[in-house]
Amino acid sequence: MKRLCLLIFILFSVRALPAQQPVALVIHGGAGNMSREHMTPAQEEIYQTALEEALLTGYKVLKSGGTSLDAVEATIMVLENNPLFNAGKGAVLTNEGRAELDASIMDGKTGKAGAMAGVSAIKNPIQGARAVMEKSNHVLMAGKGAEKFARKEGLSMVHPSYFFTEGAYQNLERARKNNSYGVNSGRSDRSWETAFDKFGTVGCVALDQYGNLAAGTSTGGMNNKLYGRIGDSPIIGAGTYADNATCAVSCTGHGEFFIREVVAYDISALMKYRQLSVNDATREVVMNKLAEKGGSGGVIALDAKGNVAMTFNTTGMFRGYVKDDGKPVTGIFKDN
Amino acid sequence: MKRLCLLIFILFSVRALPAQQPVALVIHGGAGNMSREHMTPAQEEIYQTALEEALLTGYKVLKSGGTSLDAVEATIMVLENNPLFNAGKGAVLTNEGRAELDASIMDGKTGKAGAMAGVSAIKNPIQGARAVMEKSNHVLMAGKGAEKFARKEGLSMVHPSYFFTEGAYQNLERARKNNSYGVNSGRSDRSWETAFDKFGTVGCVALDQYGNLAAGTSTGGMNNKLYGRIGDSPIIGAGTYADNATCAVSCTGHGEFFIREVVAYDISALMKYRQLSVNDATREVVMNKLAEKGGSGGVIALDAKGNVAMTFNTTGMFRGYVKDDGKPVTGIFKDN
Repeated sequence: MKRLCLLIFILFSVRALPAQQPVALVIHGGAGNMSREHMTPAQEEIYQTALEEALLTGYKVLKSGGTSLDAVEATIMVLENNPLFNAGKGAVLTNEGRAELDASIMDGKTGKAGAMAGVSAIKNPIQGARAVMEKSNHVLMAGKGAEKFARKEGLSMVHPSYFFTEGAYQNLERARKNNSYGVNSGRSDRSWETAFDKFGTVGCVALDQYGNLAAGTSTGGMNNKLYGRIGDSPIIGAGTYADNATCAVSCTGHGEFFIREVVAYDISALMKYRQLSVNDATREVVMNKLAEKGGSGGVIALDAKGNVAMTFNTTGMFRGYVKDDGKPVTGIFKDN
Repeated sequence: MKRLCLLIFILFSVRALPAQQPVALVIHGGAGNMSREHMTPAQEEIYQTALEEALLTGYKVLKSGGTSLDAVEATIMVLENNPLFNAGKGAVLTNEGRAELDASIMDGKTGKAGAMAGVSAIKNPIQGARAVMEKSNHVLMAGKGAEKFARKEGLSMVHPSYFFTEGAYQNLERARKNNSYGVNSGRSDRSWETAFDKFGTVGCVALDQYGNLAAGTSTGGMNNKLYGRIGDSPIIGAGTYADNATCAVSCTGHGEFFIREVVAYDISALMKYRQLSVNDATREVVMNKLAEKGGSGGVIALDAKGNVAMTFNTTGMFRGYVKDDGKPVTGIFKDN
């Protein structure tokens, strides 16, 4: 009788455990007009390795029972800390010579979201965004006020010079001389990169074993930017969106177009209101609607079944995904 | 023969003139939980008069051949300049005792948009938003950078103390003592107003005789706000949206919910993707989706045929519209 009880108990326990769904995680490191002829295999490998490192970081979080929010945050921190990308360390500089960073995060389960814009002293802006979501009643905080909040919440703070790289400085100087501003990621110390009209924003979308989606985006914005310009990255609905019922999305590109076209939410709306697949919805928005307006860039998206979309209307997008098998797949150009 | 030519010329000229479509304009001055018992008829009349003044200002612009953008800007300036509303002069104060204003505007014909967030020295933030749209390559500018841009563009600048009203100051002091922050509009000098849990943001949507829609929103945000908080008003897709193919929308309410629900664009998406009428779309978003999440507030919307929607899930919303006949219709409570 005891044994029978034990058996029933075990069977019941196993049934009561939530079914572990297959996990998935997708990242981007910016889209732009890049061509293979300007990049050596060794240079490609530097990026592939960086993308793989980020993917595997997020994958480990997901496989060890972490939530999609945890995975998005951890993955984006890896990309923020890597000076290869225009987010966190290595970000481009404003016209006044400092980094002004934006980030946002959204939880597909609850619809809660957090974002920071124009911050210069928070080491990992994606952590700032998550703190806004979880520790405040707000969604978006900006500038000095956002930094004050981050300090109160005990986030890792840095001197604004932390973000500074020699490449970003040289890029700014060149842009100042040409009286131009752009979205390249400011690493003129590597000649092959000056050929890129690259955007450099980073982003991540993830599906955890509990079936919940999350999305996050982080950026340094535009090189030589003026006037406190804010792009789409900290704007929920434009640069970032997540809803378990549809998909999680992170965008990269010419931010003004992404704001006006409400790109991230529009992909979700096409899935919800027109029953498009995540792939068809991203193609409709990025290849048709956005391209018709002249807006260049790309998106990554993931639905609650783990279907991955990585769509861009530029010649390239640093990108990658990892599914339940743990094998990272990365790409830079259209043909990989 | 000459007479015949003249006749043909006149007939041709008349045909060549663009058909003058009937114009329409809708405004709001904030939604909140207000009740008639706390307001005397004389007090109601103060608001009705202010709303009528704004409506007739915009109507004159439209009837004299102005565009919907011109009408939205002129109408919102009247509301910004009136200390009754929480926008421009009379705005609530941040925790640090100054007004930080947000505004946005969008052109339904071109899809272009402009916005400013956290500005303290531009007399009419809606003019700042329009300047961003028309004189820069950006959509959203914030803080000191936005003010620098406005100064360069020759907009009317004021000392931050211009926005200050005794009522706003008293309201801030009370909120500080209670360690609360709220969305009331800070006019404790009028006792009947302290009973309002009012939001006070202002907005306008318009349809001009050329068949083009535009939308704009302006606000002082939340009383006693901390940390550079930005609400939905300067966010295209959240607080403001316009597209000739669907509608023009301006929102007012608890901004965080409006950002997460991408309210203004969602109304447009329901019209475009599900063929809902402007009235059904606003009801679906405000009365169902937003209310289910606990988000309180309201919207005004207008389609390209001049159909007006004024929908709120609070007990009241300062609102009004004027159609081609020039007779302003205003309301405050549910039953008018």
